[in-house]
Amino acid sequence: MGTSVREAFRVVPAGPGLSGIDPRGRPLGPKDKSAAAESTVDLGERLDGLQEALYAEATAGGRRALLLVLQGMDTSGKGGTIRHVGGLVNPQGLHIASFKKPTPEELEHHFLWRIRREVPRPGFIGVFDRSHYEDVLVPRVEGVITEDALRERYDEINAFEAELAGQGVTVMKCMLHISPQEQAERLLARLDDPTKRWKYNPGDLVSRAKWGDYQQAYTDALHHCDSDAAPWYVVPSDRKWYRNWAVAALLAETLAEMDPQFPQPNIDIDAERARLAASKVS
Amino acid sequence: MGTSVREAFRVVPAGPGLSGIDPRGRPLGPKDKSAAAESTVDLGERLDGLQEALYAEATAGGRRALLLVLQGMDTSGKGGTIRHVGGLVNPQGLHIASFKKPTPEELEHHFLWRIRREVPRPGFIGVFDRSHYEDVLVPRVEGVITEDALRERYDEINAFEAELAGQGVTVMKCMLHISPQEQAERLLARLDDPTKRWKYNPGDLVSRAKWGDYQQAYTDALHHCDSDAAPWYVVPSDRKWYRNWAVAALLAETLAEMDPQFPQPNIDIDAERARLAASKVS
Repeated sequence: MGTSVREAFRVVPAGPGLSGIDPRGRPLGPKDKSAAAESTVDLGERLDGLQEALYAEATAGGRRALLLVLQGMDTSGKGGTIRHVGGLVNPQGLHIASFKKPTPEELEHHFLWRIRREVPRPGFIGVFDRSHYEDVLVPRVEGVITEDALRERYDEINAFEAELAGQGVTVMKCMLHISPQEQAERLLARLDDPTKRWKYNPGDLVSRAKWGDYQQAYTDALHHCDSDAAPWYVVPSDRKWYRNWAVAALLAETLAEMDPQFPQPNIDIDAERARLAASKVS
Repeated sequence: MGTSVREAFRVVPAGPGLSGIDPRGRPLGPKDKSAAAESTVDLGERLDGLQEALYAEATAGGRRALLLVLQGMDTSGKGGTIRHVGGLVNPQGLHIASFKKPTPEELEHHFLWRIRREVPRPGFIGVFDRSHYEDVLVPRVEGVITEDALRERYDEINAFEAELAGQGVTVMKCMLHISPQEQAERLLARLDDPTKRWKYNPGDLVSRAKWGDYQQAYTDALHHCDSDAAPWYVVPSDRKWYRNWAVAALLAETLAEMDPQFPQPNIDIDAERARLAASKVS
């Protein structure tokens, strides 16, 4: 697969931003839902093996981990992505953290405080459902942060992510890009279906009314905080099957490049085989 | 399905204990691997829906959770069960805790201290890979606990599990029952396969040599700590496909009896539909 998936979705800082990316786009990969399902089975097998090696590596002292950051407007499918892509790997090796509106305790600390507490341990795949990026999106759209303070946060985020890379945590960030039309359909579905109604939040319409402001805030955050050490990908997400395939493919490619290794314990295999053969069960 | 799966695997305190249960037994359910795979697809769909309702219920103030405790000899498949059965549900609603040899810090506390910290929050399915039962197994087999102290621990465990039930945490406990012959094959497979070798622990042969003592310790623990509020099931586990099916079926039946409910938010649906239809995206 080379680096094709990552190249295809990587944000282009010099580009027009999100407004230039089609939420129903399909720059590469499967052409329909059934092809995506087929491809996802293969990806699942690859992911499963790679994750197990990453986990195993850490049991022998390896320090590496992977952190997948998911961002996107309400209903963009952060939860659905975790459900589908997370379901492809061993749940024992997953660490999922969800960042909601900060609590009073969280607000007393630096905005990265709650984030640092959820950085995946060695061997784990961490998944953030929202993240520190909320802190350069919401305050900006709400007009409660100065331009200088915003730039300082971008810098702090870049320093934090570089620090993670330095300690062995590979960071990849996906913006799940949907259209406002798609959001309307998904919000309506939540109202219509009694098993989805609990997800409906009247406040979502307030954010929806600021769609353009959010798109601009996202575009700037993606441009300021994209780096080879912690790249931003924009995943066209109006079609759920494409979104799931794309995130799984990005994850598989990133893990494959990490190339985790099963450790070979320092034991005498033949001697252990002999001990086992001789073992008496009382 | 009624209560048939739970009845079939429920430990019988008056019975002969583990020695009377065939690790290759198949008291009910699918007859072969492909039938089990088919049945597991159905179970997965049921589990997925039930888990989502449990999670949703908690977002509206529900206090209920489910705790699945897995115990068994080395190689009995605790990890494999979590991988397969955990993979059937949404990883966002899972809380997995693995209890290894207690750390010095853990040893300074009551044996239930580290356990209490991992009790699943409302809405979650918790899975324990080993548990507080280690504390009535290992010290007994090692001969470092008096009969009185052991009985006191059984009582403390029963009180703890009753307390969990009282606060809304449904507890179900599965002993993955394997034969010593199957263990030998699995240990050999770990030695032979370079991708499994990291799981091989020479110390496992030391526990293996005390097989009979462990079986007796398990039998007594299961008999003393089985209750309708926190039942023990013995799952024949020499065949992995049967073990996975059985645990999934036990989980589905237990969740179905809990009958979690999707909350219906206190909003005016028609008014929200109108707001949505009128929402302008800037």
